[in-house]
Formats: sequence, structure tokens, C-alpha cells
Amino acid sequence: MDRILNRDLKDQVGNQVVISGWLHKKRLLGGLTFINLRDRSGLAQIVIKQKDEVEKLRGMQLGSVLTIKGTVKEEPRAPGGVEIHDAEISIDVPVEDQSPVEIDKPLSHKSDNLDTLFDYRPIGLRNIQETQIFKIRSELTRYIREFLYKNDFVEINSPKLVAGAAEGGAEVFKLDYFGQEATLAQSPQLYKQMMVGVFERVFEIAPAFRAELSATTRHVSEVTMLDIEMGFIKGYEDVLNMVQDLIFNVVSRVYKDMPEELKSLRAPELVLKPKFPRYTMAEIHKLYTKDTGNDTTKELDLTPDEERWICEYAKEHDGCEAVYATGLPKSKMKFYHMDNGDGTARSSDLLFRGVEISTVPQREHRYDKLVEQMKAAGIDPEAKGFAAYVSAFKYGLPAHGGCGLGIDRLVEKVIGLANIKEAILFPRDINRLAP
Amino acid sequence: MDRILNRDLKDQVGNQVVISGWLHKKRLLGGLTFINLRDRSGLAQIVIKQKDEVEKLRGMQLGSVLTIKGTVKEEPRAPGGVEIHDAEISIDVPVEDQSPVEIDKPLSHKSDNLDTLFDYRPIGLRNIQETQIFKIRSELTRYIREFLYKNDFVEINSPKLVAGAAEGGAEVFKLDYFGQEATLAQSPQLYKQMMVGVFERVFEIAPAFRAELSATTRHVSEVTMLDIEMGFIKGYEDVLNMVQDLIFNVVSRVYKDMPEELKSLRAPELVLKPKFPRYTMAEIHKLYTKDTGNDTTKELDLTPDEERWICEYAKEHDGCEAVYATGLPKSKMKFYHMDNGDGTARSSDLLFRGVEISTVPQREHRYDKLVEQMKAAGIDPEAKGFAAYVSAFKYGLPAHGGCGLGIDRLVEKVIGLANIKEAILFPRDINRLAP
Repeated sequence: MDRILNRDLKDQVGNQVVISGWLHKKRLLGGLTFINLRDRSGLAQIVIKQKDEVEKLRGMQLGSVLTIKGTVKEEPRAPGGVEIHDAEISIDVPVEDQSPVEIDKPLSHKSDNLDTLFDYRPIGLRNIQETQIFKIRSELTRYIREFLYKNDFVEINSPKLVAGAAEGGAEVFKLDYFGQEATLAQSPQLYKQMMVGVFERVFEIAPAFRAELSATTRHVSEVTMLDIEMGFIKGYEDVLNMVQDLIFNVVSRVYKDMPEELKSLRAPELVLKPKFPRYTMAEIHKLYTKDTGNDTTKELDLTPDEERWICEYAKEHDGCEAVYATGLPKSKMKFYHMDNGDGTARSSDLLFRGVEISTVPQREHRYDKLVEQMKAAGIDPEAKGFAAYVSAFKYGLPAHGGCGLGIDRLVEKVIGLANIKEAILFPRDINRLAP
Repeated sequence: MDRILNRDLKDQVGNQVVISGWLHKKRLLGGLTFINLRDRSGLAQIVIKQKDEVEKLRGMQLGSVLTIKGTVKEEPRAPGGVEIHDAEISIDVPVEDQSPVEIDKPLSHKSDNLDTLFDYRPIGLRNIQETQIFKIRSELTRYIREFLYKNDFVEINSPKLVAGAAEGGAEVFKLDYFGQEATLAQSPQLYKQMMVGVFERVFEIAPAFRAELSATTRHVSEVTMLDIEMGFIKGYEDVLNMVQDLIFNVVSRVYKDMPEELKSLRAPELVLKPKFPRYTMAEIHKLYTKDTGNDTTKELDLTPDEERWICEYAKEHDGCEAVYATGLPKSKMKFYHMDNGDGTARSSDLLFRGVEISTVPQREHRYDKLVEQMKAAGIDPEAKGFAAYVSAFKYGLPAHGGCGLGIDRLVEKVIGLANIKEAILFPRDINRLAP
């Protein structure tokens, strides 16, 4: 008889079936042994009465791989409303040692024992709620790609071993590349812009590397980045709208399609509208100062507290917890951003649930202007890591814009986790390189 | 008036339209100026009669970004069977220098001038055929994911910065990680196996890094790998079938959906069956020796010439140019393969069009046996890079198997390119780290 999945048991009431999975929980209740068996689709409850079957489980620890033949009975108190009776058990892989982490208990490790969580990650992830975080992540990533394919974006793979640091400022990892110095790409910025000249619209979802010296809940040295870039825009509005539509579409779809998973993770209610409210940074400083009494009107960028505040404000005032903060101060402008010429760059921060999840700029696409901005930023346009980039502009790039968006951060905020590392299978930071 | 794409012009005969794109070709014919405009959907032909419009194009080199308003007329000799008349031209981005590579000519760089090709990659990729290689690649990758989602695989992102080299033997890139030594992941092997204990079925498409010292048409230092792994297999057959179904499904779909692109790239005809023929390595040695007179019966692994030969043989004999060569000699076995106990490992090579595109093994999932095999391979199961891996087995992993498959190699063979680097946007090898 072929194995069926636990999620399909509810359609098999009265039938004999075979299921396989991991022993997830074992308890004695009223002289009976109840076990939960976990497979990729969820849990099944099995009640065991026969002495020789109970005997088989003696000494079997959680994680043991079992195949169970039995009959499906209705049982409203069991997962899926059914239970397996008259079980015949085969032990496929016995586990004799007790697991170092409890996988059958609800998620409790929110802050203080994250190190234990990550030290025993391959076992701890077997907790149903941990698993759900990454099922949501897999689906969310799929929704992103589906949205982008529908909008005519081509998927690219840009190199992660590069000759120079695209972003200049931030910390980079360096390595010896057959006698040359190579750096690990912090972002596909230069490559995706060059590819606008080929495909108009491109995206990539790939690792990016940052030698972050801080050990906080926000800093990791390896992230998974979504990068998108689109050419032939009529104006900056096109870029803001595309990113807004992407986020609205993807986040709404997660909340629509995965309500059970979100509920078990205690995700907050979603308050989102198709059109995100837009405030200039100057407006936000003014509103915040008026509301809190802390004067930020002299600030250029938003403070972390302002990021939290404006999301709360927009949630109440506009019915949307995603907000664009427009008009990046020119002092924060990168050389590849377009200068508005009024002290601001043509760039906005996209904020969601209290933090910036993306910066969304229009690029400078005019060759002469770009070279000027590179030189002003102290970058040699003819240097090895930049010459090809500059050539793409010399031989014709249309007006374009795009964004980079961390998948880890997005998953963290969509679910409402406390730490970006909880949204990463095997996080890397200044103190952690394994497992 | 909103811009429409070139591919939609055929539905607009008689109408006035606006198109935008790059000047791709310019020629004088019978006193008229003909130009081709390239956008993300292909080429459009525009005929220009008016003197002041012709004048606007004076000095404008290929790559110039133009917006053109005009009327669509039927013209069987033009791309898409239509042509734009009465054109009014706006120059959005002028290009005044002549491109260093010819982008309007059919692909001619098959071997000797690959360096020029890659030096001017951001411009050379604007050649329509070059573009098509990467549109096929984007679609092929999409088809792979769709197949895997349908089969209940969860997408994972495993770290590329790791503490030890998973594969031991092959060359690795090393770097300083905040004072520790880190290596760049050669494959997600250990991580995907650990994740079988969580999700049963997982996949990842991500960069992998190999410090390849050879400069050949086959060696690159950064590849894009598809990795899949599936648990609760009834037997090795399940793994062989899943990989076979994936390749059959994806490659057939590319040939079905993209005939024009494949034709313009002169891709060979596809000869594929849903069930790939299977020969043991010993059988292949025997058949090859009999056919060619070169005695390979003392060889363990297949020689490169045998790989070519068996694919040709299977194409003629079995009507299928994908073949499984089963029964990997134990001397080539990795520590994580299952030992058949008869001098072979439970592992097969998947060959397609003359080369190995994947190795498809069942894994050793029994803790005691795995630890024994690790020690025999000189690996300390308690070492930092391996302790978590081993723990996943200690606490219960079901029988499982999977494969790693290079996307670059697959695209190369599907299209019939001469060099793996032609299937990579920005290839990296011992001599090349830019652009």
C-alpha cells in the first residue's frame, strides 16, 4: 500500500491507510498511548492500544522515523479531525538519544536563547511553527517571482565574485582570487543596471554579503536580496508604483493563502491598501515633532523612532501600514541615484511595520551626469570594477529605476518576528559561521 | 499616447502608435532610411522619408534611445509583418560613439574571440540572439521551479559562507571572516540533507563557488546550481524517476514554448523520451569497447569519449539523448553516498547530449553507517562544519536522495552552445573577474 500524507487522512475515514513520518510527541492518557506523527504536510494522531505495538515504541525517542498502517476514524479533538486506530508500527529509523531541543512545544525562544536555537538549528526547525516560517518564506518568494514574470521581468544571475565594491562605503568581504583581490558582491546594483540595456526589466533573488561588525537583531553578514530594475519609465512614479504593487500583491496573497500558518505564529492583522500613502521626509519630521515634542526638523534622514511612528500614523490615518517616505536628502544620495537638484535625491524609503524595507530610487541614466557624480563620489569611472558599467550608459541606457529588498527582512515583518535571524534558516553574523 | 511594445504592433495595422527602444540598425535603401528599433519584445522596422526626421538621426549611433510616433502598415518583409510609416522621432538618449562590438549582426563569436565577447559583455548582450539565450535561461529556471512546487518541494536558502568545505577534495575559496577562516560554499549538500528532516523535499537555485585552476570551455569558478533533495523514498528508483521527470518536463517545455528562439540560435532537434534509458557503467564500457575497439573495460568511471558515445548510442538505439549511467564505482563514492556493498555506490550519472549534467545518488541516511563512512574519508564528524550535519542523522533522517545540477551547463546543452561561458551573463574563470 502506498504512503499517503497526513493532510489527506481526513478524506479516508473508515479506510485502512499507510503513513510515514517522524515521531513528534508521545504521551500516555487513560492507559492508552497517543503519538503524533509529523510529515511534510503536518501532524497525525495515532492511538495505540495493542501491547506489542506499544512495546515497539519503548526507548524510541522523538525524531524516530516510523511507518504506520491503521484505520482512519473521526475524532474532532485530533489534528484534521481524524485519528488512526489499530496501528501496526514499523520502525524505519530508530532514534535512541533524546533531542537537545524540545521540538513538540510551541515556539518560546523569542530573544534570550537564540544561540541555543541556532546551535541546534537542524533539529529545532522541526518544530511545526519554525517550519511554518520557512513555508511562508518559500511561498512569498514564489509570489514575488510570479508577479515579476507577469510584468515581463527577466530573471538574471549576476556574479557574486567581483573586482570592486559597488557601494563603496559599506564593509566588504575580500578574498584571494587566483592572485587578484576579489570582493563578495554586496548587491547586484551595477549588473542589474547594465542589464536594463538588454532586457529592459530584470530581477534577481540571490545572496548578498556584508561584513557587518555589529551584533544586533538587525545585522547579518549574508542576506537574500530581491533586486529589480526597470527601464523606459515615463517618470519616477512608474518605479514607486511597481514596487508598491509588488509588495501589496505579495503580502496580501500570503495573508489570504496562509491564514492558519500566520495564526499559529501569532502574526499581527494586516492593514494594507493598494495605494501606499506618501509623505516627504520633511513632512514626516514636522508631523512627528508636532506629535511627540521631539524636534527632528533639523534631521535629514528619518530616525528609527520616526520610522516606527510614521508607520503607526499611516496605519491609523490612512489605513495602511506601508508608507513611502519621499525626498531622500542629497547628503545620503548614492552616485547612481538621480539628483532632484533641490537638495534631495529622486529616492524614497519604503517603510513597513516600523522599518525601512527598501530604498526605491530613479537612477541617473545620462552618461555625462553619471560620470560627474561618480567622480564627485571619489570613484574612478575607468577602474576595473566600473568600466563596463559606465560603457552601458555610454552606448545608451533609457530612464530607469528599481529597488533592492531583503527577503529575510520582509519575511520577518510579514510574520511579525522579533529578529531578522528567525527568518533565516542558518543565519550568519559576526559571531556565527556554523552550522 | 502610451508606448506599446514591438510585439503588439501586428495588432495595430492602420493605427497611430508610440514605440520606444534602442536604435538597433540603420540603412539607406532606394533613397529611404530604414531603421530597426529594439525593445524588450523584439525588433520593429521604421521607414523614414521626411527630410527633417532623417536629419534628427544624423550622428546618432546604434544604442541611441528613441521614441517614435507613427502609423502601422502591413509589410510582409519586415519583422512581425508590419512597418511604421510617417515617423516622428524623439531622441531620448543620444549615443555619439560607435559601439565597440557589432550588435546588429548574427552571432558569430563561437570560439576564438570569446574574450572580446566578455570584455564588452553589457553591450554585446544587446545582440538579439545573445538576449534569447538568457530569455531561454530565465524561462527554463521558471519551469524547474514550477515542476518542483507542483511536487511539494520547499525552496530553501542555505548560507554560502561556511565553516568547512563540504566536499573535502575540490578546490575552495577561503576568506577571513572576522578573524576566523570561512570558505565559500561549493554546494548546499550538507544543508539540503539536514532540511530533509524538516521539509522532506527541498530545493535551492543559488550560486556555488569552485576555485577551478583550469582554463577550459568547461571550467568556471562561479556557477548557478539547482540542488534538490527528497526524503521518504521507497527506493533509489524514486530519486532517479523524479530527476528524470524534471529534466524531461523542463527541456520538452522549452522546446515546445520557445521554438523561434531555439531556431534562431540553431539549436539541435530534441530527441527525448519520458523514460530515460539506463545502462550500468560496466555495460557502457562493454558496448563502447565493442563498437570502437578502444578497450575501456578496465576503466572505472566513464571517459569523456564514452560520455559522448553513449548519448549518441542511446539517441539512435533508444530514441533518447538523455541516459542514466548507473552503478558508480565505489572508488568515486562520496562519504554521503549509499554503498551498494558490491563495489558500486548507489549513484548514477545523468548524461545529456554528450556530457554528464548531474550525479544522482541515494544518500546514506543511517547515523552509524554515515559516521563510519566519514571517518573512512578522513572527516571528523565532530568538526565545526560537520557536527550539526551529523546531528540531523542522529535525531532521525528518513531514506533520501537528490541531485545537484548546473543551470549554466543545462542551458548550454539545451541550446547546443559550444562553451558553458556563453550561457552565463558574466562568467568567472581563472583569468576573468570583470566585468
